[in-house]
Amino acid sequence: MLTYSFSDIGSESLYEHLYGCIKNDILSGKLRPGIKLPSKRTFAKNLGISTITVENAYALLVSEGYAYSIPKKGYFVSDVNISIPEAINAGEEVTQEYFADFASNNTLHELFPFTTWARIMRSVLSERQPELMQKSPGGGIAQLRSAISEHLYQYRGMRVQPSQIIIGSGTEYLYGLIIQLLGHEKIFAVEEPGYSKIAKVYEANEVEIRYVPLDENGINVAALKDSGADILHISPSHHFPTGIVTPISRRYELLGWAAERETRYIIEDDYDSEFRLGGRPIPPLRSIDVSDKVIYMNTFTKSLASTIRISYMVLPRTLAELFYKKLAFYSCTVSNFEQYTLMEFINGGHFGNHINRLRRYYREERDELLKAIENNPVLRGADIFEKDSGLHFLMRLDCGKPDDELIRDAHRLGINISCLSQYYHNNEKAPGGVVVINYSGIDKEKIPEAVRLLGLLNTN
Amino acid sequence: MLTYSFSDIGSESLYEHLYGCIKNDILSGKLRPGIKLPSKRTFAKNLGISTITVENAYALLVSEGYAYSIPKKGYFVSDVNISIPEAINAGEEVTQEYFADFASNNTLHELFPFTTWARIMRSVLSERQPELMQKSPGGGIAQLRSAISEHLYQYRGMRVQPSQIIIGSGTEYLYGLIIQLLGHEKIFAVEEPGYSKIAKVYEANEVEIRYVPLDENGINVAALKDSGADILHISPSHHFPTGIVTPISRRYELLGWAAERETRYIIEDDYDSEFRLGGRPIPPLRSIDVSDKVIYMNTFTKSLASTIRISYMVLPRTLAELFYKKLAFYSCTVSNFEQYTLMEFINGGHFGNHINRLRRYYREERDELLKAIENNPVLRGADIFEKDSGLHFLMRLDCGKPDDELIRDAHRLGINISCLSQYYHNNEKAPGGVVVINYSGIDKEKIPEAVRLLGLLNTN
Repeated sequence: MLTYSFSDIGSESLYEHLYGCIKNDILSGKLRPGIKLPSKRTFAKNLGISTITVENAYALLVSEGYAYSIPKKGYFVSDVNISIPEAINAGEEVTQEYFADFASNNTLHELFPFTTWARIMRSVLSERQPELMQKSPGGGIAQLRSAISEHLYQYRGMRVQPSQIIIGSGTEYLYGLIIQLLGHEKIFAVEEPGYSKIAKVYEANEVEIRYVPLDENGINVAALKDSGADILHISPSHHFPTGIVTPISRRYELLGWAAERETRYIIEDDYDSEFRLGGRPIPPLRSIDVSDKVIYMNTFTKSLASTIRISYMVLPRTLAELFYKKLAFYSCTVSNFEQYTLMEFINGGHFGNHINRLRRYYREERDELLKAIENNPVLRGADIFEKDSGLHFLMRLDCGKPDDELIRDAHRLGINISCLSQYYHNNEKAPGGVVVINYSGIDKEKIPEAVRLLGLLNTN
Repeated sequence: MLTYSFSDIGSESLYEHLYGCIKNDILSGKLRPGIKLPSKRTFAKNLGISTITVENAYALLVSEGYAYSIPKKGYFVSDVNISIPEAINAGEEVTQEYFADFASNNTLHELFPFTTWARIMRSVLSERQPELMQKSPGGGIAQLRSAISEHLYQYRGMRVQPSQIIIGSGTEYLYGLIIQLLGHEKIFAVEEPGYSKIAKVYEANEVEIRYVPLDENGINVAALKDSGADILHISPSHHFPTGIVTPISRRYELLGWAAERETRYIIEDDYDSEFRLGGRPIPPLRSIDVSDKVIYMNTFTKSLASTIRISYMVLPRTLAELFYKKLAFYSCTVSNFEQYTLMEFINGGHFGNHINRLRRYYREERDELLKAIENNPVLRGADIFEKDSGLHFLMRLDCGKPDDELIRDAHRLGINISCLSQYYHNNEKAPGGVVVINYSGIDKEKIPEAVRLLGLLNTN
């Protein structure tokens, strides 16, 4: 029989005290789910209190979900644990550790200039206290938007007004704002294959999507026209995972498509244009758009560090006006503390330096990786696609294994890979045996061994 | 005629240099919108360059939107300025300075423990570098969710699992997630009168809303039943702007309404429950909900400082499971740097202390304000409603002026006020002459003069 002391109850009432004692035992696991609680009368007698006190305590336990009653049977302890998939309990993803992870597109955090960032944060904390206590305007603080406008001009040749720039905590959040801006009834076209999170955001918002196939120059314009979509969401400077860079001629075709109807817009997701490693940069769609049809997006999460949740979009003039009419009531989702820090980081030239350093590092890494592949007896001569752009390329293996087997074998060898087919919505149309080699998260020293393991993968 | 020097062009080509010169003059306003640019031939002759060079420069200006061409007429300068309402250009809101602003619900930022917050930020920066470079799980970092769970238990008597808590950058963002979780086809009921931003978020997301009237105990249940709504969005611990606290009996009635249908849920917006200044606290709906029907929400933006964009919601078990299935792909919108800082702030007891300090401060402020009103010859005896809850109360003026005139007169006197009628969607049903006295942003020293001005307002 349960027993509790009533000697130290302080100002609590008797029933509150009893309720608290039982609840603690339930939460600590001492009283397990399904256990029957003592009958009210017996319990009261044993504890030397009235039956009504026990009744009140039980009623409170039931109302708060700690216990349940079955008529004529009595009171029982509830199961207070939620059945959430264990892997994501409390949001902690269980990630397997691989010797080399070619499937992750995280960048090496050792390359982030943490010391500089921390120094700027400290100076913002000590020197900008009054500004920090102000609320950021909906689109972001003016000085950060000016800094981004200047950066876009210097690095991407784009001239946009700070008021066209809207800051948000991540591109996924900004996709949501775009849906609100353009309307849920619009049909959105996404790339097939493509980055699946984009389609997921549209699906979560119950927006109709069409998967439009790519050809060697990016989105196939005939298929786009057939799709009936109003809004095209693409990453023309560097498509993930194929790495295709849409040439200028196709860009003009796409702009032509958008210009045909007033309701059409293009979302240009320029998320890793900073990492183009070779060849002449192609101007963003936004910079050659004279019809006010392109929403340009980019993020600092990718180019700086995943701890930084700051992205932005550049709205065409008409949509910027609509934004201020319709959505300016929203508070900015980035704290102005982080906005000021990023502003100083850009204006102090640190962002430009960081990008240059990353680009040098990854160019060397790619070169070493390609050399190691060329020197590997099994991989030598494998088809490699789009090695100039971004932080990944495609490699075709000729072992003839189906993709799911390739991935399983890779895990067995201690490496992680993804295959091109996984990025298809309809993967019956996907070519098999093409591995996406994401090298942005691979330590340089690991390259020789990682390539040896990739070679083992390509054998039967 | 325009003229430019070609002596210092460096590595630029002639046409790029010319393009740059003209563009700068357009952006600086030297070349005004609508101005005709010199004809290609004459311009080339004057500058001593070839016609094709001018043609290339003009083409680039057109493609970037700085100029436009009219066939057979020539090239003209575009209007490069966006027509965004001047007040919100670059997001800078022009706010008038008042001697006392009773319409703003900002809290006094002098009360924020900035030094402690900054100290914790510094220690997080220096001691948690590896964690800071990790990506936060979708719902927020586990340690912050545990800290909030513990806080809710201690301060609100709610026992929830950390995995039921979802962190986001502001309640407006979380409202959007709830819409995605429950579905756009649901009908949402909001309070009439109420905080208009809530309805704006639903409208921006194209979700159907119903305005349900309040009676003296909060949402009128009969009207709620008639509304046909599935989801009820309320702030029962302290309604804005009426200050109504929904009593426990009405709370059970509302929970009963929700339990009637599987599709029904209640969003309990507890945004300023910390500021209850008198009376016995009433348990949140969430803590007496045994049917898994209440989504509890709260924010640190209100209780800490507007620079901090961190809010959270507690999902019922079934919705938490749905969240992990459907929306766990989203990245958390709060940087983990700020999440760790807040976690340490709560765990170190600073948040609890801060709330207690604020409550003491505002209780004194309210008392002084009420005393000054009682001592004012014009305001003495004015009806005051709901003075125990939150940081505002209502005061009925008897001067008989219509509300718009009251507000205009207040501005003329140098103070800002809002009237109850402004918080009605259908303000024909609103009572007139009731002023919302938000005192959270008023310096104590200003109270005597601010009340004298309020008194002047109540005369003809």
